[in-house]
Amino acid sequence: MTKKDVLQIGMIGLGTVGTGVLRILEKNGEEIRHKLGVGLEVKRIAVRDPHKPREIEVDPSLIVDHPDHVVNDPDIDIVVEVMGGVDLARQAIARALENGKFVVTANKDLMAQHGLELLAIAKNQNRNIFYEASVAGGIPLIRPLKNSLAANHIEKVMGIVNGTTNYILTQMSCEGKEFSEALAEAQEKGFAEADPASDIEGLDASYKLAIIAALSFSSKIDMKDIFVEGITNVKLRDIRYAQELGYAIKLLAIGEETEEGLQLRVHPTLIPADHPLAAVANEFNAIFLEGDAVGEVMFYGPGAGSLPTGSAVCADIMDAARCLQHEVENGIVEATFGTKKVVPMEKQQSRFYLRLKAKDEPGVFASLATAFGETKVSLDMIIQKRSDAETAEIVLVTHGVSEGNFQKALDTIEAMPAIRSINAILRVIE
Amino acid sequence: MTKKDVLQIGMIGLGTVGTGVLRILEKNGEEIRHKLGVGLEVKRIAVRDPHKPREIEVDPSLIVDHPDHVVNDPDIDIVVEVMGGVDLARQAIARALENGKFVVTANKDLMAQHGLELLAIAKNQNRNIFYEASVAGGIPLIRPLKNSLAANHIEKVMGIVNGTTNYILTQMSCEGKEFSEALAEAQEKGFAEADPASDIEGLDASYKLAIIAALSFSSKIDMKDIFVEGITNVKLRDIRYAQELGYAIKLLAIGEETEEGLQLRVHPTLIPADHPLAAVANEFNAIFLEGDAVGEVMFYGPGAGSLPTGSAVCADIMDAARCLQHEVENGIVEATFGTKKVVPMEKQQSRFYLRLKAKDEPGVFASLATAFGETKVSLDMIIQKRSDAETAEIVLVTHGVSEGNFQKALDTIEAMPAIRSINAILRVIE
Repeated sequence: MTKKDVLQIGMIGLGTVGTGVLRILEKNGEEIRHKLGVGLEVKRIAVRDPHKPREIEVDPSLIVDHPDHVVNDPDIDIVVEVMGGVDLARQAIARALENGKFVVTANKDLMAQHGLELLAIAKNQNRNIFYEASVAGGIPLIRPLKNSLAANHIEKVMGIVNGTTNYILTQMSCEGKEFSEALAEAQEKGFAEADPASDIEGLDASYKLAIIAALSFSSKIDMKDIFVEGITNVKLRDIRYAQELGYAIKLLAIGEETEEGLQLRVHPTLIPADHPLAAVANEFNAIFLEGDAVGEVMFYGPGAGSLPTGSAVCADIMDAARCLQHEVENGIVEATFGTKKVVPMEKQQSRFYLRLKAKDEPGVFASLATAFGETKVSLDMIIQKRSDAETAEIVLVTHGVSEGNFQKALDTIEAMPAIRSINAILRVIE
Repeated sequence: MTKKDVLQIGMIGLGTVGTGVLRILEKNGEEIRHKLGVGLEVKRIAVRDPHKPREIEVDPSLIVDHPDHVVNDPDIDIVVEVMGGVDLARQAIARALENGKFVVTANKDLMAQHGLELLAIAKNQNRNIFYEASVAGGIPLIRPLKNSLAANHIEKVMGIVNGTTNYILTQMSCEGKEFSEALAEAQEKGFAEADPASDIEGLDASYKLAIIAALSFSSKIDMKDIFVEGITNVKLRDIRYAQELGYAIKLLAIGEETEEGLQLRVHPTLIPADHPLAAVANEFNAIFLEGDAVGEVMFYGPGAGSLPTGSAVCADIMDAARCLQHEVENGIVEATFGTKKVVPMEKQQSRFYLRLKAKDEPGVFASLATAFGETKVSLDMIIQKRSDAETAEIVLVTHGVSEGNFQKALDTIEAMPAIRSINAILRVIE
């Protein structure tokens, strides 16, 4: 490779993120050239429908109708994949790497499921894939994990990595809305998709966790090893009880390396009101990390959006450009990923929040406490309120217990005649 | 340069940070070697007093009594300066660069005052200086500014970059302590030095601001262009009023690029209680940035301490090692720093919080309001309380006004016979 004055970029996709990338390259192109010592020029943009009207004006001669025209163009140095989806993107990226190009992608589904396979192709070709934008939009995370925190053994990662669910939970908590009302509002404001399933059921967060955990723990992560529970069952009532007990409820993606193995889970979680993650409101994202040297650090910012995600893509393009300029052919600095053992969910320890209704009669609470005691689940906090003339609402928070043992306690309690209903089960962290 | 199996490190200084660096290299050496593909070995450590007892056991044969023995050793690849101070460190680093070594430093005083000079020497020599640890300890900041956010035009930076003062302000705010009591406690707990002047008077924060602002705005920063006010005059009473008005008080280092030029200042600041910086408690630091693409991002973590700062130093050592391994001789990616205009403090806009005592008699408030009105200072919030039988305490928050105009209003008010005393003046941001 010889140093060039201008590096050619080929884009695949021109949706929200792609538009952001073009806008940033246009607005800050001079500053970027100044910082890099080389210019960046978009040479081709592959789109599904060349005739679709776009939010941004693009020279029609740049537009092509298939990724192949981008990845096979010998003049293109850096391929930027921002079309999303898995199969076509995977083929295009593999081909681009095989053709000797550096690749930048914002595709979390792809990186979560086929990231290591693509990184291996890149390594083979002395090239690299940059994927900062695949997790938490504009928030620097992949790069800090690879570099700034590289001397640390990462012990734990907890992230608010889905803006839709955080917006909904914030609106429930601060405005007293119920889930369905908050979801409708999020859809109206563009923070939730028309089909919100992937967000509200925690799937989106689990892809991001797979990517973060792989890097944090230098391990291959299989999506099926991640326990996933969404927020569709979170009630305003539980948010209010949580507040009374000193907690906020957030959908957290949690990865932890313990002596028994990796623990990987996504679920709504009670976190102490003074925890830095508790203050992360609305559509914002944040990732909280614990390293053995650095201690606790948190990265906060917009987890999605055209320009924020474009900011991350452009930073990756700049890194790829530096690799090309400095003739570093293989910029891959990730550790070779091992395969660490994963702790099955039923053996993972949690604290539990439990809300139930019981007959308001003498001895009920005692028998409930006994049932917990017999299954070795000890109680930390209790609220009991009268629900109606004959029913009491009881809220309990347990100390740490394995999921399996908690389930046993729950089975016992559910069978008790005095228990009318179990209305909520949530996990709690300190 | 040819690839080596082990890179040799020479350290200058073995205090708190140096000890942290050694501990991390020892504990995580294997992981680091795995990630880098090369081992790191500490070959020499220069200390002032070789016979001083140390917290960490070190092979005595490594110890030398002058930095020259480190920077002139031809076997040493990377020099790590963690002794602090300006003159000797500056000489040692310059010599190390001239001898072809990469340099890592945690020295904020040095980088704030002579950073560009040293970076120029490095560039000349095709080497680099890494200084992540010089600002905000273990929190990734320098690197994100250079890389992750490089495609952004940074518009504003606001940082809680001094742990001592944040600890003191948190204790005042949460525990109802007065300044002197909180300071004494901070000293007891090791969060404040025996001589706390540099921290509590804002000087330490101003050095950090110089480094952050230079990188954020790609401009040379002269220390004398930074307005600095410490927290010694912050009273518990003002923290309470601030809370009543919906604000927290934090010592902020603020850098902003406006059409008129750069604004650079360190002062105690009222910030809205729901701002992410307001939740940063005790000795923790955080830096909040606004970029034109990414929007608002924040980096949070421990701003000091042996292992956290060591974590940043080790990340820099790893970056230097990568440069050496990949034969990238000049890793400097900073823009050439220009010299941007700085707005003089009297022309900078602020909102002001003002607490004063006035005679509790008819017409006083009206004449106060008139005095403000005549100097074009408009009022946003007002609290008036009876102080004693004859005196009222009045708290005002103005809308935006230039420092110069506010001073004029203040002069007028001070001269009013009904005004007994002006007890507090603080700046406010939204």
